[in-house]
Amino acid sequence: MHPIVKCPFAPFKARFAYERRHQYFMQCAYNEAIRAWNEGEVPIGAVAVIDDKIVASAYNRVEKDRDATAHAEMSLIRQLSKNFGDWRLSNVTLYITKEPCPMCSGAIYKARISSIYIGLYDEQQGCVGGCCHFNHAVKLNHKLQVYLEPLDGACETLLKTFFKLRRRALG
Amino acid sequence: MHPIVKCPFAPFKARFAYERRHQYFMQCAYNEAIRAWNEGEVPIGAVAVIDDKIVASAYNRVEKDRDATAHAEMSLIRQLSKNFGDWRLSNVTLYITKEPCPMCSGAIYKARISSIYIGLYDEQQGCVGGCCHFNHAVKLNHKLQVYLEPLDGACETLLKTFFKLRRRALG
Repeated sequence: MHPIVKCPFAPFKARFAYERRHQYFMQCAYNEAIRAWNEGEVPIGAVAVIDDKIVASAYNRVEKDRDATAHAEMSLIRQLSKNFGDWRLSNVTLYITKEPCPMCSGAIYKARISSIYIGLYDEQQGCVGGCCHFNHAVKLNHKLQVYLEPLDGACETLLKTFFKLRRRALG
Repeated sequence: MHPIVKCPFAPFKARFAYERRHQYFMQCAYNEAIRAWNEGEVPIGAVAVIDDKIVASAYNRVEKDRDATAHAEMSLIRQLSKNFGDWRLSNVTLYITKEPCPMCSGAIYKARISSIYIGLYDEQQGCVGGCCHFNHAVKLNHKLQVYLEPLDGACETLLKTFFKLRRRALG
């Protein structure tokens, strides 16, 4: 386990306004990421939205659950499947603070989610445009719409600062 | 839900012999796939092996659990993480009747599994050689060894027959 360094960033006091709803939902995902940070996890958060309402929220819990599959997006998809009794989640939009990894991107396609908003592209492992794009790289019978909502760089700053402080704490 | 057509194939009466152990483990995975079939699922099975012992087995349960993430490989990784209290499963070898999809391939890399045996490549969605290969397509700080153990084509025949009979049952 890495030592926990308290998150120096404040959560957004998010305010919903129809014309700023994508920002609002991403701010809620960002606040989930801060919760992850304060529990010693890589700070990634996500919320699921149907008809302009948040129906589930989650954050990365790999260390806490000691489970490599416990990413925020996976937790959301499992929660929603359980709640709705259906593995098809085509009416759900996800807001995720970082572009999903190969596993989570794959799960998003498998669950037939049609659109996601991401706070940041990931050139190392992102599979919806950052490093590769499953719309083209794999023959899945489903296409995904991906939109960027970076909160003026807050999503990127959060992650970069986390890794900087963690490296410093490790000496 | 699709109608359930009973599986016309018999399970292997698998016999362990040191020099045929990969066959043996794949036969056990195949038998899991037959269980999936008889519960109305796409017949894919998997077992996890440590030091020549099966430590967990699983089959596809997407329809039963109504959860797009309930693939055999994901269930195995979650079971093992829970049992061992660690998300790193680098000493585990998986035997899977079909090459893993993007989600499961991603999870295998995230869990740091170092080698897998597959019964069949998947040119549509396989992400460890069939359609693309995460060893090259994504910048994951981990490499995976992939071996083929097709059981004289039994893994392929099982899947092809399943889809043929399902199409016929649907008229």
